[in-house]
Amino acid sequence: MSYRRTIKIVCGFAGGSAVLVVAAAAAEYQGCFGHTRAARWSLFNVLQAAQPAGNRTVESTGNAWDFNWDKRDLSALLTNGKKEVVREDPSSEQDNGKPKATRNILLIRHSQYNLSGNGDHERILTPLGREQAEFTGQRLAVLGLKYDIMVHSTMARATETANIISKYLPGVELVSCDLLREGAPIEPVPPVTHWKPDAVQYHEDGARIEAAFRRYIHRADPKQKEDSYEIIVCHANVIRYFVCRALQFPPEGWLRIGLNNGSITWLTVRPSGRVALRTLGDSGFMPPDKLTRT
Amino acid sequence: MSYRRTIKIVCGFAGGSAVLVVAAAAAEYQGCFGHTRAARWSLFNVLQAAQPAGNRTVESTGNAWDFNWDKRDLSALLTNGKKEVVREDPSSEQDNGKPKATRNILLIRHSQYNLSGNGDHERILTPLGREQAEFTGQRLAVLGLKYDIMVHSTMARATETANIISKYLPGVELVSCDLLREGAPIEPVPPVTHWKPDAVQYHEDGARIEAAFRRYIHRADPKQKEDSYEIIVCHANVIRYFVCRALQFPPEGWLRIGLNNGSITWLTVRPSGRVALRTLGDSGFMPPDKLTRT
Repeated sequence: MSYRRTIKIVCGFAGGSAVLVVAAAAAEYQGCFGHTRAARWSLFNVLQAAQPAGNRTVESTGNAWDFNWDKRDLSALLTNGKKEVVREDPSSEQDNGKPKATRNILLIRHSQYNLSGNGDHERILTPLGREQAEFTGQRLAVLGLKYDIMVHSTMARATETANIISKYLPGVELVSCDLLREGAPIEPVPPVTHWKPDAVQYHEDGARIEAAFRRYIHRADPKQKEDSYEIIVCHANVIRYFVCRALQFPPEGWLRIGLNNGSITWLTVRPSGRVALRTLGDSGFMPPDKLTRT
Repeated sequence: MSYRRTIKIVCGFAGGSAVLVVAAAAAEYQGCFGHTRAARWSLFNVLQAAQPAGNRTVESTGNAWDFNWDKRDLSALLTNGKKEVVREDPSSEQDNGKPKATRNILLIRHSQYNLSGNGDHERILTPLGREQAEFTGQRLAVLGLKYDIMVHSTMARATETANIISKYLPGVELVSCDLLREGAPIEPVPPVTHWKPDAVQYHEDGARIEAAFRRYIHRADPKQKEDSYEIIVCHANVIRYFVCRALQFPPEGWLRIGLNNGSITWLTVRPSGRVALRTLGDSGFMPPDKLTRT
């Protein structure tokens, strides 16, 4: 039983900090309403609703670390930034309400697909892609983690990859989300010549992928008792952007990272808001002749 | 035959840009003089010697990308920043002198070792650590890349790991370097409480590890005809710092990354100076019960 299922489900974003991106992402977001996986309504949402809507940027924090990057640093929210007030009274109610569990988020890039397909529905996995997904499923199974949920992008190649992986993880809830679809998250620095999305693509996809980041990458809810392990099957651009954002590295740097098909990228988010990248693009569980990056 | 062996070897740093760090790193650096692996003397060195010694920082470039990060952007050097002069005349001698090959640098973290040993010489691999190194060696072998050289830190655990890997890569030159020894590269942001090196450690190690970065992580020499694959067996802090520096992410962020023992981290450096991280901490080739991070 996933810890998530024990929490009252209300479909909506996790707080006011997402207001900026909702408009552009609305069309995509509707897809999520059709699924059971949704954001949680908790003390955080109440607190976040009180935050200014424009308080967020998609910039790196330079050499600093913003502990309240996910707007879930309860002490910062309750004391309006005066953290020392809470820290001086660790036995207070506020302190007891802090997150205690670690979230492990395993980001899986879909496996190889038919690049020449006409539209998403034809861009299905190749025979090698299906084989890669089997390897990924087997690896996730033997890792023996207590997976709580597997969320996947609604694109055909991610759905198919997730379905194959799911065979190896019986009992793990499988849900889809449009926010996780592939796109152009932000203009890469340095720019590249072989990939030139139109400005409108960055405009729409960027807001949607940032919304996906805020939805899935954050510290645990204070109600979460045990460490969690969640699988997200999505796309190279989405994963690379998530990694940069989560580590508070410049998100424009996402294209400096490459990911093999079917590879595993593992982020941990501590109760304190600290984030660690445990592995990126791990595909060592595949025989070398099965490795691709297309 | 490594392409490196075809190049005249002169022991010394690759140019004036390293002057800042030589003083602090001198003691460690002496160790390198005793080995055959050394920097190359080329047109670059001449050009670099003419560069101001203080023109380099250990800071991230924020949202920008510095194409001349390794001081080997020949067009920038020859035209004093007026790149368009060279680009307007691509058939010129200057253009022909540009790098053409890609360097692949595979960074291996040593495998598990006896943490309670008294001094480095007692901090040798555990039985599990030796087993992990066998897995790493096997994986590197089946990847089937044309490895040119394997450089390892002179610390016992890295030397032992490299020696085991070396069994699987017959004919690959094995050399050691003191610059690659473990240390405190730069104060991490956010800070941690469980690891507090003295200021003098950052002062000395930081310069040495930066010197290691400049020595090993850079684009190919224009004389290099084919893509190269080099293995560096060293330490978690060194690898994490290298990755941040190579990607032009804030180096203070190195502790946001974790690495399993015996894992493979793969950087590519294109002739243009572009850098890509292909995988970080890949250890999927080990059975899950063999994975450690100590």
